Amino acid sequence: MRASRFPLFTSKEIPTDAEIVSHQLMLRAGMIQKLASGLYTWLPLGLRVLRKVESIVREEMNKVGALEVFMPAVQPAELWEESGRWEQYGKLLLKIKDRHEREFCFGPTHEEVITDLVRRQIKSYKQLPICYYQIQTKFRDEIRPRFGVMRAREFLMKDAYSFHLDQGSLAETYETMYAAYTRIFTRTGLKFRPVQADTGNIGGSVSHEFHVLADSGEDAIAISDTSDYAANVELAEAIAPPGDRPAAGKPLATVETPNQHTIEEVSALLGVAPEQCLKTLIVEGAEGGLVALVLRGDHQLNDIKAEKHPAVATPLRFASAERIEQELGCKPGSIGPVGLPIPVLADLAALYTADFICGANQDGKHLQGVNWGRDLPEPQRADLREVVAGDPSPDGKGRLHITRGIEVGHIFQLGQKYTKAMDATVLGENGQPQVLTMGCYGIGVSRIVAAAIEQNHDEHGIVWPEPIAPFQIALVSLNMNKSTAVAEASEALYRQLTDAGYDVLWDDRDARPGVKFADIELIGIPHRVVVGDRGLKNGTVEYRSRRDSANQEVNLDQLIEYLRTRQSV
Amino acid sequence: MRASRFPLFTSKEIPTDAEIVSHQLMLRAGMIQKLASGLYTWLPLGLRVLRKVESIVREEMNKVGALEVFMPAVQPAELWEESGRWEQYGKLLLKIKDRHEREFCFGPTHEEVITDLVRRQIKSYKQLPICYYQIQTKFRDEIRPRFGVMRAREFLMKDAYSFHLDQGSLAETYETMYAAYTRIFTRTGLKFRPVQADTGNIGGSVSHEFHVLADSGEDAIAISDTSDYAANVELAEAIAPPGDRPAAGKPLATVETPNQHTIEEVSALLGVAPEQCLKTLIVEGAEGGLVALVLRGDHQLNDIKAEKHPAVATPLRFASAERIEQELGCKPGSIGPVGLPIPVLADLAALYTADFICGANQDGKHLQGVNWGRDLPEPQRADLREVVAGDPSPDGKGRLHITRGIEVGHIFQLGQKYTKAMDATVLGENGQPQVLTMGCYGIGVSRIVAAAIEQNHDEHGIVWPEPIAPFQIALVSLNMNKSTAVAEASEALYRQLTDAGYDVLWDDRDARPGVKFADIELIGIPHRVVVGDRGLKNGTVEYRSRRDSANQEVNLDQLIEYLRTRQSV
Repeated sequence: MRASRFPLFTSKEIPTDAEIVSHQLMLRAGMIQKLASGLYTWLPLGLRVLRKVESIVREEMNKVGALEVFMPAVQPAELWEESGRWEQYGKLLLKIKDRHEREFCFGPTHEEVITDLVRRQIKSYKQLPICYYQIQTKFRDEIRPRFGVMRAREFLMKDAYSFHLDQGSLAETYETMYAAYTRIFTRTGLKFRPVQADTGNIGGSVSHEFHVLADSGEDAIAISDTSDYAANVELAEAIAPPGDRPAAGKPLATVETPNQHTIEEVSALLGVAPEQCLKTLIVEGAEGGLVALVLRGDHQLNDIKAEKHPAVATPLRFASAERIEQELGCKPGSIGPVGLPIPVLADLAALYTADFICGANQDGKHLQGVNWGRDLPEPQRADLREVVAGDPSPDGKGRLHITRGIEVGHIFQLGQKYTKAMDATVLGENGQPQVLTMGCYGIGVSRIVAAAIEQNHDEHGIVWPEPIAPFQIALVSLNMNKSTAVAEASEALYRQLTDAGYDVLWDDRDARPGVKFADIELIGIPHRVVVGDRGLKNGTVEYRSRRDSANQEVNLDQLIEYLRTRQSV
Repeated sequence: MRASRFPLFTSKEIPTDAEIVSHQLMLRAGMIQKLASGLYTWLPLGLRVLRKVESIVREEMNKVGALEVFMPAVQPAELWEESGRWEQYGKLLLKIKDRHEREFCFGPTHEEVITDLVRRQIKSYKQLPICYYQIQTKFRDEIRPRFGVMRAREFLMKDAYSFHLDQGSLAETYETMYAAYTRIFTRTGLKFRPVQADTGNIGGSVSHEFHVLADSGEDAIAISDTSDYAANVELAEAIAPPGDRPAAGKPLATVETPNQHTIEEVSALLGVAPEQCLKTLIVEGAEGGLVALVLRGDHQLNDIKAEKHPAVATPLRFASAERIEQELGCKPGSIGPVGLPIPVLADLAALYTADFICGANQDGKHLQGVNWGRDLPEPQRADLREVVAGDPSPDGKGRLHITRGIEVGHIFQLGQKYTKAMDATVLGENGQPQVLTMGCYGIGVSRIVAAAIEQNHDEHGIVWPEPIAPFQIALVSLNMNKSTAVAEASEALYRQLTDAGYDVLWDDRDARPGVKFADIELIGIPHRVVVGDRGLKNGTVEYRSRRDSANQEVNLDQLIEYLRTRQSV
């Protein structure tokens, strides 16, 4: 493509309303333009990247035998009422009334539509398993759209859905899709990690997220330093410290802690580490009463884990200060597990702490030298906290470190959540109707583009991985309008490179070299070949990789060969 | 693709709610499934066709240098208010309120969004002309969606928009696009015709529609039998009959025509041809008064032509019977131009009629032997009627015949309708802001699929033109599970054909030959190759084209060569 026919709309200005670097660079590189809050037009340069990602996704879906379909974006309310999500999905669901006042939504996902399609089309177990996918525009009415296409309202998604006679077949397809996802993200050239994940509101049991690793990622991921173990911190198991609990060594004593409420305040006052203090959080119980959650002072409660505990109310609700004072007789900052007249759940790490400090259930007082079993009954054991760096990996191999990621894929074993609600059955081998079992598999196609930039950029701009770069090679002609030699050599090279199968942007613009170089760096083209009079005198052009700053003189007739050696992926 | 991995969801039942053959066949062939009124899921078989059409369109757009973008489907109301179409577009526009009660629509077209994009991006005349396009899902809230994807509410459209400094540049790009459209429709293998068209509500002056010719088409097109002339009958000029008006030959006389109101009744009563009677239609005039439109009895008023006449009110409104009786003194069926106290516009053919019959402006009476200029003043001349078969072609070459077409493309020279309303300017050569001039170019991608079927089908099913067939070749294996020879020969042939670049559906299903043949005919694959034990004994397979019923024995080792000779396009 000639730049004279493929205008670059680059800009030096950093857009003031773009908070993250991918958003800034996509605007500055002229990849996208904002239409309204959370709505972006993909400009020609951005669309080239989006289409390359889309192609990789499509190829790998086809390879595993998923059948491509194209469902309507607009979906009738009736189906969402059948599944129970018309109300449950909340305001993310963009509801629409047509001219006849019939209710629809702009689909944020297509479980209902595909389940309806399958229940009308698939009649027998012999037609199973079957897997459909589509690549399509979705809409989620985010309360605060932000970060450009990273959390836009309208976005491009690949969603796939598989249907099975039983769980065994689902597990098989799930594994196939897991492998396909691994190939997809490997092929994009991005550093990524599949992680165990929570299934959240979508339902089902087993689930994995695929994260592009980037310091700016919204999600924290716990990864073993020795094994393959990786899990969203929401889910990562915090196992018990190794060995037995240390023996009690100190006597129980009450200390005055006037106006000291937080762990920081109390540990500072008493001159001990926060991990020697236990904190007690009071939440509403599943049965209506109160429940105490005890954690080490240096640990954070994991809301999702707490909520999943059968003794705790769903959704998780902290008891109000008033209710605590009324029922337990002191302020929340002075609560401790000793003598507490409600059920006590202790996190595994808290349970392994001896001679600990905790609230005395009297305002202005704490207890020290407290020991489980000696000074108070052994509590219920529970995994309640978020893992931290240095925790042992739950698979017993190595220690966890915490890294950050951007979720770009999510696969679920849904089970029968939708098929049961929507009565999607087939005739089984025994001739009886049997409810289908279902899996679903999503990829945020447009989000991958932004995530790739978060992971790959420097102070000059984007640094594309080759497989998804808008162009592989930038052919930059210097002072072409003044030099016939440059014009002719450039034209010949452009033909040669495109004939060799490269995706080339030929910068044939009448602009200063500095302007051209800055543009090419900003838009992040992996390989740059500069054609100038000086080099041509010696029969050379200048090569530079976007990933390093060294220039290399290359003989014109060896360029193709040289480029082959420089291809990163 | 193996049919065992690409399920065909064919059906013999004719769907009761499908009125036209393409809708019936698309449902029966398993190309689409209905989700709700005017909303269809494209199943794998249908999507293959849609994607082939899409590819042809994209390739030709890229060839002429149009830049692909991808705009949001959801558009803010503010832009439509700027252009004046938020109210004007009517109920076809699907309006949406987001969670913050801000107004949006699901875009039925993107003039506003692209004009906004361009006014923010293009600053100088040096960046012109520029042409953007996209292939995208649109929504039009049709009052009565029908005919499957032919008039669906959600549909796939290619829309392109060009921007220019002046009309000359627009005219150039328009011509380029006209040529690209001609190539696109030629490449689909469909019989089509570009026709002059009315610009309707979208604005602008010059406009052409591209029609796929089919007897079931909604639009009537007038085509010259000798020249290239073709126009939508809405627009086709009805020129004056050749020569002078015949001389008056009969005396003026009043005849009693009690209770005879229509042309048919009057001409039957008086024993003359309907073309000898003139009918007089009373409409509201541009200034508020009434206006008479006079046509030959055998001709139909063309509403669009009438509406464009400066003397006539817009939109066209027929005068009520009450107002006619009150102001003109008789019932509408007895109105005639003689002595009428309002302006009289006569169609050119009516003007050339001598000794005509018309209403006498008294109930129950008509006049006969009436002659313009003798019995009443010469009226204003106007082209008011729809052309009919046999009319002289307006370009002076040959006669018109009327054929039917399905509109699949429409190109417009919009001029400054949107750019003026939305203040889209660039700096001109003189340094002064200059309003952009604009063209727009649409193709109904999903509609092409249905139109192709309307044009190409028989009693057994669809007969795809090769370039857009879901598969080019059906390889049908007979009794494969019982014959190793058939299985092995089929597998080898499948490899050979796909390696030769053919898009092959290998029907490897365990089904009766009749079932397979019927399916392959129904889904319309152009070439069928049957592998059976009988033929294999002689080293042959059986070839049959979807377009004829003769079978041909072909030697296995000559098959590829033979297929090359049978390719239609």
